[in-house]
Amino acid sequence: MSQQVAVVVFDGFELLDACGPMELLGALADQFAIAVVGPTTAPVRSTQGPRLCVDTTYADAPVADIVLVPGGRGTRELVDDHDFLAWLRTWASAATLVSSVCTGSALLGAAGLLDGYRATSNKRALAWVMEQAPQVRWEAQARWVEDRDRWTSSGIAAGLDMTVALVASLCGDETAMELARTLELEPNRDPTRDPFAAS
Amino acid sequence: MSQQVAVVVFDGFELLDACGPMELLGALADQFAIAVVGPTTAPVRSTQGPRLCVDTTYADAPVADIVLVPGGRGTRELVDDHDFLAWLRTWASAATLVSSVCTGSALLGAAGLLDGYRATSNKRALAWVMEQAPQVRWEAQARWVEDRDRWTSSGIAAGLDMTVALVASLCGDETAMELARTLELEPNRDPTRDPFAAS
Repeated sequence: MSQQVAVVVFDGFELLDACGPMELLGALADQFAIAVVGPTTAPVRSTQGPRLCVDTTYADAPVADIVLVPGGRGTRELVDDHDFLAWLRTWASAATLVSSVCTGSALLGAAGLLDGYRATSNKRALAWVMEQAPQVRWEAQARWVEDRDRWTSSGIAAGLDMTVALVASLCGDETAMELARTLELEPNRDPTRDPFAAS
Repeated sequence: MSQQVAVVVFDGFELLDACGPMELLGALADQFAIAVVGPTTAPVRSTQGPRLCVDTTYADAPVADIVLVPGGRGTRELVDDHDFLAWLRTWASAATLVSSVCTGSALLGAAGLLDGYRATSNKRALAWVMEQAPQVRWEAQARWVEDRDRWTSSGIAAGLDMTVALVASLCGDETAMELARTLELEPNRDPTRDPFAAS
């Protein structure tokens, strides 16, 4: 049976944060089924302009196997939205695996979902992200961080690398590398190699 | 004034083919304005599942500065859709620059938009793509090909590299590299370095 992947979108989500991982997981349609989860059934506008359709609302979203939270400009408001954070904490806590790309980790952190975990985020936004969740062990140099059932990536394009690693973890290395070849993608496979870490 | 970018979507477009370039161009909102152009005003489903909203229909789409055509499973039917190809040829011919990602070049080729040009495409699909437009000078080893006002990229993730090069060409190298850093993207900047070329 395929794993249910729920991607949480909101006004001002970063387009590639969501669509990079969805491309990779969606290309393995026999293993992953993707649902886009939004505040209402209305389309959600990305920071870049294009709008994604919503498959199910926050209120109606069933428990997912894998939750993925993108970053983007919209996170700046959402870290102060206590209703959203309360919903995210309760709903995502029931998932097997919770992941984020870029400043999506600020939302996970603010919701308490990274308490006691190691995590990373967009390197230019890291100071702000750390303020949202000081109880998290933030890593300033990491392309992505896997800590038990929490996977967080660095900025935007790092979500592609994290997702290749996630596929390798869930489906095996051969499947992940064949997927990358299909996408003509050269992933960074070393989570500690972070060319964008603050020097 | 910003350049108008029109991204042509259709049932079964490849999600990252469209969203990778839209992320890059959309991040330069003062320089590029993106419109998603679809068959009707209804949302369009990607090969991977997620649906994009349409800003304007094929019939109503104004002339764009830059046209981008993604690939995906849907191209297999569209190369035989003479109404679509006739529309694409007429409408895209009026653009300043016409580009494609992956098997999007099969659509440009079938529409006659690459006649007399050098072009490339997804390397695993290249034999099929070449059949659609034998009068094009297809390059079997190229991450992307820039030939005058036609830019075509190799498979899926290659669209990110091509778009960085396109931004460098239109906005300067400094803007392109700062954009890549913002995205934490390490682009392949050499169009002749193609790790996925058939050996």
